[in-house]
Amino acid sequence: MDFTFDAISADERAHAEAVYTPFTQAIRELIDAAVRTGVDGQTIAQAQHAVEAVTATLTVTEQAGTRTLRDAVTGRPIAWGNPVVGSRNAIAPPLDIQFTDGECWAEFDLGSAYEGPPGWVHGGMCALVLDHILGEAASDQLSKPFFTGTLTCKYLRGTPLGRLRAVARLERVDGVKAYAHGHISDADGVTVQADGVFIMPAWARGQP
Amino acid sequence: MDFTFDAISADERAHAEAVYTPFTQAIRELIDAAVRTGVDGQTIAQAQHAVEAVTATLTVTEQAGTRTLRDAVTGRPIAWGNPVVGSRNAIAPPLDIQFTDGECWAEFDLGSAYEGPPGWVHGGMCALVLDHILGEAASDQLSKPFFTGTLTCKYLRGTPLGRLRAVARLERVDGVKAYAHGHISDADGVTVQADGVFIMPAWARGQP
Repeated sequence: MDFTFDAISADERAHAEAVYTPFTQAIRELIDAAVRTGVDGQTIAQAQHAVEAVTATLTVTEQAGTRTLRDAVTGRPIAWGNPVVGSRNAIAPPLDIQFTDGECWAEFDLGSAYEGPPGWVHGGMCALVLDHILGEAASDQLSKPFFTGTLTCKYLRGTPLGRLRAVARLERVDGVKAYAHGHISDADGVTVQADGVFIMPAWARGQP
Repeated sequence: MDFTFDAISADERAHAEAVYTPFTQAIRELIDAAVRTGVDGQTIAQAQHAVEAVTATLTVTEQAGTRTLRDAVTGRPIAWGNPVVGSRNAIAPPLDIQFTDGECWAEFDLGSAYEGPPGWVHGGMCALVLDHILGEAASDQLSKPFFTGTLTCKYLRGTPLGRLRAVARLERVDGVKAYAHGHISDADGVTVQADGVFIMPAWARGQP
């Protein structure tokens, strides 16, 4: 695993975000519309061909994998392609994670594309969000190589679609293990709690 | 929560699948291309406008939420919009879950859009997949109202992007709790193990 990402300046980053953010949002809206549309088969077929034509304009130049960069000033990775926070990944809600008083938190909306039981967020989507935000807390905003060792999610009640909040905090570090705790809440309080143990792999233990 | 879904005949279902499956696949390829493309900002802007135009053709007729149907013959829900298995949800890889000898299993591919650390599946995506497939095992293929109570994922090593297999089995039912166990594996063996406790909520306990 390579953690020596190329650096990107603040200007380059701002420019790239300005290009990618609205494009990715347009794809998110397409995903949502595809789940909910009631148009006829012919319209769907036309939409399919139009989407394929767009994709063809993008695959002219592409990388084999995602290109993670790091901020030239902070040194932190910019996870463009990440499926929870990535500004280039339409799967990501995305979470815009804030860091205040030692706590990671984000407010975000989950719509129909994240639904499990009717009207409720898929339980696994809650686990995805919690794994990520606990991982941010454990890894000092993804800057240290800590990876999920164990994740336990306790579902107190259903998480409704709509506006949600996720929070996580690093509880303690014990050698190569970092322990984090967090939850998802709606306007009425906590819906899912999570505990995670994140581990620094052997190959990274000689690193600062 | 409403579990009395409208029925759909085998013919209607086959027709709908033939319309939606290639369209959703086209959107998945767009998501992947958007993560990996190296084209210039002007091409991205053009792609954005084209995607917005497609979405506008779909939102002419749409539902407030996802419309889950049930198979008229088997009575089982058809989770079109589900973010793990849904044939109408481009977020879903999707998993095509098979049921043999009391075991749920699926083979599937995860590409760049599911990436966490470079080259590896995001740990939370593994949790999403495992929550879903354990839930299928616990709920008799989503036909019984069992919802995730506790999910514990133990990550034995990184899960590489590419071809993967997920498996789950119902271990036992103890009153309103169903216990399931499963894992994700690559060609070299198990990467993540999971245990789940799924609970039948109070409102559903009078149901057959």
